[in-house]
Amino acid sequence: MCSLPVPREPLCRVAVTGGTHGNEMSGIYLARHWLQAPEDLQRPSFSATPVLANPAAAAACRRYVDRDLNRTFTSAFLTARASPDDPYEVTRAQELNQLLGPKASGQAFDFILDLHNTTANMGTCLIVDNAHNVFAMHLCHHLQLQHPELSCRVFLYQQQGEESYAVHSVAKNGIGLELGPQPQGVLRADLFSQMRALVAAALDFIELFNQGTDFPAFEAEAYRIAGTVDFPRAKDGDLAGTVHPQLQDRDFEPLQPGAPVFQMFSGEDVLYEGESTVSPVFINEAAYYEKGIAFIQTEKLTFSVPALPSLTPAPTPLP
Amino acid sequence: MCSLPVPREPLCRVAVTGGTHGNEMSGIYLARHWLQAPEDLQRPSFSATPVLANPAAAAACRRYVDRDLNRTFTSAFLTARASPDDPYEVTRAQELNQLLGPKASGQAFDFILDLHNTTANMGTCLIVDNAHNVFAMHLCHHLQLQHPELSCRVFLYQQQGEESYAVHSVAKNGIGLELGPQPQGVLRADLFSQMRALVAAALDFIELFNQGTDFPAFEAEAYRIAGTVDFPRAKDGDLAGTVHPQLQDRDFEPLQPGAPVFQMFSGEDVLYEGESTVSPVFINEAAYYEKGIAFIQTEKLTFSVPALPSLTPAPTPLP
Repeated sequence: MCSLPVPREPLCRVAVTGGTHGNEMSGIYLARHWLQAPEDLQRPSFSATPVLANPAAAAACRRYVDRDLNRTFTSAFLTARASPDDPYEVTRAQELNQLLGPKASGQAFDFILDLHNTTANMGTCLIVDNAHNVFAMHLCHHLQLQHPELSCRVFLYQQQGEESYAVHSVAKNGIGLELGPQPQGVLRADLFSQMRALVAAALDFIELFNQGTDFPAFEAEAYRIAGTVDFPRAKDGDLAGTVHPQLQDRDFEPLQPGAPVFQMFSGEDVLYEGESTVSPVFINEAAYYEKGIAFIQTEKLTFSVPALPSLTPAPTPLP
Repeated sequence: MCSLPVPREPLCRVAVTGGTHGNEMSGIYLARHWLQAPEDLQRPSFSATPVLANPAAAAACRRYVDRDLNRTFTSAFLTARASPDDPYEVTRAQELNQLLGPKASGQAFDFILDLHNTTANMGTCLIVDNAHNVFAMHLCHHLQLQHPELSCRVFLYQQQGEESYAVHSVAKNGIGLELGPQPQGVLRADLFSQMRALVAAALDFIELFNQGTDFPAFEAEAYRIAGTVDFPRAKDGDLAGTVHPQLQDRDFEPLQPGAPVFQMFSGEDVLYEGESTVSPVFINEAAYYEKGIAFIQTEKLTFSVPALPSLTPAPTPLP
């Protein structure tokens, strides 16, 4: 993985996308609210653009209509010739790529904040592609400092050699905010307020950067994806058990070899057979049943993030 | 409302229906498990029949395909002439009426236990049509005594003059089990085990009754439906706010006049303007957004339930 170069210009084209998944309600209602009342997204040096990313899925209160939009921003989908038979989300990904990209081009937006909810007990999770993304890691650090009460954790999701596929990959940079637990189709006031406050703090960070603030190096802690674990399944592929009560709701806590991970319908426990302690996340997330994921294994890391140098101030205009 | 006569014969035809709503996972996986392994449902005097009530919705992990099955057991739907254009759930209600009814006939099943989950913080809720259903009230009392750790509450849902519409209304009698909170599409091991234990205790009660046990009168507490309250909405009908953090998760707790019930996206609080204290239930249930229900108001009542007389023992067969 290469280190993403830190920006050398102010970030003026910023988008906040909600409803990338149509049943994750915090982002849907924030995006709808900001489309009516955009003042919250205005800062002296820029105004962020609110986007309801998957309006058809949001109208149906489903994750997606034809396929997961947030897995559709790969080059193959974005460059395919359009056809009337295209899945809805392929068409929509191409539209968003026109609006916010094109991906990997100089015209792309500078930054996307993409808003999500999970049914898992993830608290406040900040989703970054990898730890070499110095600007994103500083943004996360700022959110942690501004909102210590939320215990924001950083999840590094990109696997070695994997093409980026998420909506924020059409911009030059971006992160996801993942707040839970919240059932699909439910709008909790507490998570709505938290997400609103986090977006405000993220825009404040971009404003500080744009104004020429420099941010010193720091020691970071993050959880890097190490693999996925499926539910126990019967011969027909259906569930034969579910997440063990001793693992349920324990996202980010250490899981040690020999600890129970599943409870079978027949009554037995299934134990974790890995050789090292991991930190499971997205435990029993509703949307991942169809993906064959009962939880995602991560390894907890600490590392040094270098300073984020301040922008060279633009020449002061003559009076 | 008339008092339902107490049974004078053993209850031998008993069904347990799961997946009446296709994204309420405890009942779906219990029904699927029992269809493979029916021993749990066997008692000396009867064997309960497991039924996956809405298989198409369960396969799609949605509440329903075309319309809410659990509002489709009215005379108008059950007696309508079948047509190929019928909504799936109308066809399925007619099938279930053939299998478990016909409704209001002598051939109908004696009892249906219908299994549900809610996203609301309802704990263990036992759903009975009305307090004059002496047999059902005794069954609920038995569950309360057998499982004091679950704080089982009784919700009386039938409103004056309303035709019965739920799946258990096709049998001569029945109740619903409503366990929460559980997100749609998620199977929590704790609620799965609780529901399994409650079904076992309910079948044990029917067995005791069938064996000639008499059950003394008792004082009951229950929550009777008194109305519904919608979310605050904008002119276009979309939400303008959501359930207030001070009301969220407080199902069955007293709500006093003047207490906050909603938090608007604009920031203000909406206060409860009723004249008397009520007990809200199904607070912020995902499935009720489309029904225009943010919560259901109930009044908490106590009343006397008369003894349930024992069955006259059948004449002992001659050797």
